[in-house]
Amino acid sequence: MSSDIKTLSDHRCFGGTQGFFEHASREIGLPMRFSVYLPPQAVQGPVPALVYLAGLTCNEETFMVKAGAQRLAAERGLALIAPDTSPRDARVPGESDNWDFGVGAGFYLDATQSPWATHWRMESWIVNELLPLLGHHFPIDLHRVGIFGHSMGGHGALTLALRHPGRFRSLSAFAPICAPTECPWGEKAFGGYLGPDRAAWLAHDASALMQSQTAPPYPEGILVDQGLADNFLAEQLHPHRLEAACRAAGQPLTLRRHKGYNHGYYFIQTFMADHVAHHAAILQR
Amino acid sequence: MSSDIKTLSDHRCFGGTQGFFEHASREIGLPMRFSVYLPPQAVQGPVPALVYLAGLTCNEETFMVKAGAQRLAAERGLALIAPDTSPRDARVPGESDNWDFGVGAGFYLDATQSPWATHWRMESWIVNELLPLLGHHFPIDLHRVGIFGHSMGGHGALTLALRHPGRFRSLSAFAPICAPTECPWGEKAFGGYLGPDRAAWLAHDASALMQSQTAPPYPEGILVDQGLADNFLAEQLHPHRLEAACRAAGQPLTLRRHKGYNHGYYFIQTFMADHVAHHAAILQR
Repeated sequence: MSSDIKTLSDHRCFGGTQGFFEHASREIGLPMRFSVYLPPQAVQGPVPALVYLAGLTCNEETFMVKAGAQRLAAERGLALIAPDTSPRDARVPGESDNWDFGVGAGFYLDATQSPWATHWRMESWIVNELLPLLGHHFPIDLHRVGIFGHSMGGHGALTLALRHPGRFRSLSAFAPICAPTECPWGEKAFGGYLGPDRAAWLAHDASALMQSQTAPPYPEGILVDQGLADNFLAEQLHPHRLEAACRAAGQPLTLRRHKGYNHGYYFIQTFMADHVAHHAAILQR
Repeated sequence: MSSDIKTLSDHRCFGGTQGFFEHASREIGLPMRFSVYLPPQAVQGPVPALVYLAGLTCNEETFMVKAGAQRLAAERGLALIAPDTSPRDARVPGESDNWDFGVGAGFYLDATQSPWATHWRMESWIVNELLPLLGHHFPIDLHRVGIFGHSMGGHGALTLALRHPGRFRSLSAFAPICAPTECPWGEKAFGGYLGPDRAAWLAHDASALMQSQTAPPYPEGILVDQGLADNFLAEQLHPHRLEAACRAAGQPLTLRRHKGYNHGYYFIQTFMADHVAHHAAILQR
């Protein structure tokens, strides 16, 4: 591994390698952590990759520990990439006072408001710094990258995909925050990171972004799974808003509502195989 | 659920239900926690079950979160049962001072030495209390129960299986402590829980127990997986001692040594499917 990237640990897993890493991020101005699973096929050359963005309170380990995705990635020859969910140890006053704002709650955007704007630059970190770094140092094919995520990370996947056309070739989400400008989590985060001007928030709202598309950005479809026993569904997630926006934009959306499933990783692991298959079908065409 | 058992949480998972529970244990004299995964098939009637015993520092959640076993259990119609690894909040002085003794380190035996003997009764709890309780309150067929585990829990699986003939119909382990009377972890635990008489320790040493068998207790075979990059292999685990004891007892043993794999759950999840298949083939005959 290059001296740019410090290996924290690595673990053989399904014939590939699960690694945890840290690098000195230029965009964030602090050390940032991420994890990468390389499938067995990566020893022969660059492989397609899936970026997974995790939810509130999670970190770069959550997905790799709980989602059961490595087996599927090994079968299909896909790398998995999971960035941390916010800067850590930035010493911004109050950064750890809330579980849904600050540490563990970066919302995958670049903050414009003081004191957050200095370090809370998750969008630029992931899109402009981390992915190029990974393409340079790992056997990952940057022309075949998909993105998915859960809850706040589902919001992140949808918005980064729509804000960076062509960067991510396939897209899916588990229980995403579909309309953050219209829910308490989003109002708190966007108010803090982006300030009081609600017009500026719309550029980070998946449903608003989709509504404004002039052509469907993912003609092969977007897959979204949502549990109906999810405690956050009614107040925070608003999948019907994404559904309406996709309809308006002519964007094919498979939104599956699952009776009895809640918001956690027992739900996510149940439907992980369908998501990996969705991405693989597009990335490996 | 009966008032004997308090449900802490439940989660839909692969069409079945992942539950976390607590009950007032008679054997332990304290509340004890355990988890149960019921596959979709359990709604039709009692199903076979696998008991998984976890390693040092783990609890009743570790296996259910990290091992990726629910998918396999759902496919094959098996319940999964994971007990906690020790009493908690017993207020024994020093109980949490060591990561390899006391809390999180019950070693699946009944302590005979003060102050541990009062509450540290993991063997009696699991075999005589928890399993009958589960057979009574859950759709689990107590005549078709297998056991497996990891590290300290591999020791637990091997020793409980050998000490209670007929109780567990199938047996496997991941990186088990195979000869605890001959390694630092075992010497510390057995010295503390069982006292200085080393002769008494042999009744809880899987290799010694196997060596003393007059007929192979598991004629259909025992499966053991061991990583060769496991940091604990040389000093603590001694699989060659179990191998020799099985040979002496005529006990069929499949001991697989895996290059590059370490002691953690990335190793365990890689080979979980083989273990579930091993048990299912015996339990569902």
